[in-house]
Amino acid sequence: MTNSITIFDTTLRDGTQGEGISLTAEDKVKIALKLDSLGVHYIEGGNPGSNGKDIEFFRRIRQMNLTSKLTAFGSTRRKNSVCEQDINLKHLTESGAQAATLVGKTWDFHVHTALQTTLEENLAMIQESLAYVRSRGMEALFDAEHFFDGYKANPDYALATLAKAKEAGAEWIVLCDTNGGTLPTEIHEIVSRVVSAIDAPIGIHTHNDCELAVANTLAAVAAGARQVQGTINGYGERCGNANLCSILPNLQLKMGYRAVRDDQLKMLTSVARYVSELANAHLPVNQPYVGNAAFAHKGGIHVSAILKDSKTYEHIPPELVGNKQRVLVSELAGQSNILSKAQEIGLDVNAEQLKSREVIDRIKELEHQGYQFEGADASLELLLRDAYGDTQQVFTVESFKMIVEKTAAGMLSEAIVKINVGGQQVYTVAEGNGPVNALDNALRKALVQFYPDINHIHLTDYKVRVLGGKDATAAKVRVLMESTDFKDTWNTVGVSSNVIEASWEALVDSIRYALLGMVKKNDVESETPRESLGLVNF
Amino acid sequence: MTNSITIFDTTLRDGTQGEGISLTAEDKVKIALKLDSLGVHYIEGGNPGSNGKDIEFFRRIRQMNLTSKLTAFGSTRRKNSVCEQDINLKHLTESGAQAATLVGKTWDFHVHTALQTTLEENLAMIQESLAYVRSRGMEALFDAEHFFDGYKANPDYALATLAKAKEAGAEWIVLCDTNGGTLPTEIHEIVSRVVSAIDAPIGIHTHNDCELAVANTLAAVAAGARQVQGTINGYGERCGNANLCSILPNLQLKMGYRAVRDDQLKMLTSVARYVSELANAHLPVNQPYVGNAAFAHKGGIHVSAILKDSKTYEHIPPELVGNKQRVLVSELAGQSNILSKAQEIGLDVNAEQLKSREVIDRIKELEHQGYQFEGADASLELLLRDAYGDTQQVFTVESFKMIVEKTAAGMLSEAIVKINVGGQQVYTVAEGNGPVNALDNALRKALVQFYPDINHIHLTDYKVRVLGGKDATAAKVRVLMESTDFKDTWNTVGVSSNVIEASWEALVDSIRYALLGMVKKNDVESETPRESLGLVNF
Repeated sequence: MTNSITIFDTTLRDGTQGEGISLTAEDKVKIALKLDSLGVHYIEGGNPGSNGKDIEFFRRIRQMNLTSKLTAFGSTRRKNSVCEQDINLKHLTESGAQAATLVGKTWDFHVHTALQTTLEENLAMIQESLAYVRSRGMEALFDAEHFFDGYKANPDYALATLAKAKEAGAEWIVLCDTNGGTLPTEIHEIVSRVVSAIDAPIGIHTHNDCELAVANTLAAVAAGARQVQGTINGYGERCGNANLCSILPNLQLKMGYRAVRDDQLKMLTSVARYVSELANAHLPVNQPYVGNAAFAHKGGIHVSAILKDSKTYEHIPPELVGNKQRVLVSELAGQSNILSKAQEIGLDVNAEQLKSREVIDRIKELEHQGYQFEGADASLELLLRDAYGDTQQVFTVESFKMIVEKTAAGMLSEAIVKINVGGQQVYTVAEGNGPVNALDNALRKALVQFYPDINHIHLTDYKVRVLGGKDATAAKVRVLMESTDFKDTWNTVGVSSNVIEASWEALVDSIRYALLGMVKKNDVESETPRESLGLVNF
Repeated sequence: MTNSITIFDTTLRDGTQGEGISLTAEDKVKIALKLDSLGVHYIEGGNPGSNGKDIEFFRRIRQMNLTSKLTAFGSTRRKNSVCEQDINLKHLTESGAQAATLVGKTWDFHVHTALQTTLEENLAMIQESLAYVRSRGMEALFDAEHFFDGYKANPDYALATLAKAKEAGAEWIVLCDTNGGTLPTEIHEIVSRVVSAIDAPIGIHTHNDCELAVANTLAAVAAGARQVQGTINGYGERCGNANLCSILPNLQLKMGYRAVRDDQLKMLTSVARYVSELANAHLPVNQPYVGNAAFAHKGGIHVSAILKDSKTYEHIPPELVGNKQRVLVSELAGQSNILSKAQEIGLDVNAEQLKSREVIDRIKELEHQGYQFEGADASLELLLRDAYGDTQQVFTVESFKMIVEKTAAGMLSEAIVKINVGGQQVYTVAEGNGPVNALDNALRKALVQFYPDINHIHLTDYKVRVLGGKDATAAKVRVLMESTDFKDTWNTVGVSSNVIEASWEALVDSIRYALLGMVKKNDVESETPRESLGLVNF
């Protein structure tokens, strides 16, 4: 049996069923191009029968000659009707997609309860609908909905639906664990039986409701399935779909299967982060393989070991999936963490054990106040360089004032800034869309005469997190800011009981970091094309 | 072989190695009490040898007579030394814990590279350290670090380390997949061999680097392991530890094993959310079993099916783990979603198809602007009740003004609010720790004379999310606010290009919702004791 696996990505269809996931037609085009370069074999773009946005997507993408096969999703025809008059099948076959995925019922309970029709009619719906799309010149895939629940309830009928699909000319028969409740052992046993019973290429489509979607997919492949359906970052309804970002490296690096080229696998981390950005969904730091913490080391003992040999605490070299090793600075940090961090940014500190001891205490104190440097490398680097006398002040802040007013006429935001640059006092006022934007504008206005390059620096992300919500003390807020010079990005942090002061602190760090020329290339982040980075100006 | 499984929770030790996870001694006491009521058999409280915070935790918790066995973590003694002079073992045995978990090397590569000692010395370290803690009257567990990598590299030596642990009197031998790189099939095979080779109770400790920690744990149990080590929400270093919130229901509801009582399993969702709050870590909405979206339904077809029978798209009844079904309102929503949501809040809308059609369009328009009602049920309910004429205005806002000033003297935040209550204009000014707090104070000051109950309403959480960061348009911000009356909580949303205006909008919704008496009991959230909810006042 071949060891090459066909990858079917449904991020643009099933993935958008996830809570909080919403993509414009433009987002979908961008993501499809990324998926094509990643080398997935099928891209399921959407359900042309359900909304105009997907029709628009197919209209635009089909002109772009992707290597991946463009696929449209739909259901088998309505009960007691004919395909020629089915509006969804009409949209599907007119979408311009090369392949059609038709979902049909295989669980007798669903035929009776959800469809409210007969078992015979359901078989006819499957047979006629697949034959119809084939007759329109499209490749046909059959998504066997609830197959595993159906097989457990009524194996003969479940297999009969697959036989009908095969008979109608389906190129692939995809077994779906729609409710995500099946265990790997059951998946392996049932897929094995289907592979021996049905003479057609078999695919697997799992959901993560038991936190087993990846394991279930691997079990199905081991049992003979040769197509894997999943989404980037596991986006999908309820607990999500099978996560291709974990399945791809597991198949290729651990199990010896082939799906994409090695150089394409190296794009995995950047694709995961790119899609999460367009989906406006935060990528969990602890996401396997591609998360920012997937190869991050916190415990002092672990850090001293990976400094000897990273194999001691890393199951693969992070570069294989385009990720990288990080050393976290935290209250659990031993001296080895802070030293290796300092070395990472090129400080010669071996001679300065005592000094670095002070830095650790300073960092522990700040973390106690609510600072978190794990997500603010630029602020941490400033802290370290300041401690080692490796920096200078660019400017000092004497005062600022911010006024936000809502009147019948609308909103006004105005900021007044008084700073000192090399002994010279600068006093400026500026408006903005909102307070942070107004402060940003006033600060630039004061600095641009000294640093014209400041016009190339912009905020690209801004997050506010309430701290101390867990105890009875007055809450503080932590602001994390991301900035860009349109080549690279850097992150800074500010903490205060006042959200404006915290924002100001992060803003000052960001601009100082850039004006000191500390911005450095970050392979992973820079994969994100600038046009996808909007500017924060509120 | 028995079907009862021993649960070993290491949230308070291995869990705190996760990026961004940090717990005070007070947090740890609260979580330990929760874990005790959940019925876990062992609670690993920390590493008394590594920091004073853990010593403090053990000092306080040991007076509380938990049912769970209190366990302290440490390493085998330093090489070429004796246990009596090992400072970590001293702290461990003086911690007051009933049991000690000692981690030791089983992978020859680690003995040479990380420990930099001989294979023989490592065996002595294991044997003497375990015998030492046993001689101090503690139960001893051996965490066999990197056992699966070690077994694959040198099975004889890996097994020899286990034999030494057994010989020294270890009550449990726990096989650790420390780097998280092992596959379920390998775990099953290797655990089976260990179970037949070593006559001692075997445990399993996995990490999630391949997104397989849960599957690996289940595979080990199937192969004969009878202790499961994991953490709440899978917190832990890099990609996290095995997630007990998924393992417990999988073992009990799907595989027929016994670990905790059914009424304890019903606490799972509230425990998961309680721990995430104290850890200041956002619980992913799509987390299996306990996430807010784990039983949420978005697609119109799915929603109409679950209205007929929830078994159609739910693998278990959510109540078994203390979670509940939700219907999401989103741009993918069909009319059935919005109707069932309206029915959920007790509106009689069957007769008003047309009206609800308008509501759907309104919601789609707002979602297009960046509103997200999936996380703001209170704002959505106000929207629906307003649409059905089921509410009244409590007050109208004429204007507000906000001043934030930073001077040498410090920060000042002042808010001026002009509202109209039943035809009467009220004009107030108030200070605050920050702008949101100042606006909150000024608004209460204006309303308290009409609604004295307003003093019982407080903000408990506040999140800001940048929108439109994915396109080149001016960014907007979305503010999500959580409020409480110290019995229940509700969530509201505001969107604007100005963070102050967005906050104001969410604040006004929150107070209006409460003053209209719409607050209702939410079984899950109310499990979170109020003392753990701080007040947002920045």
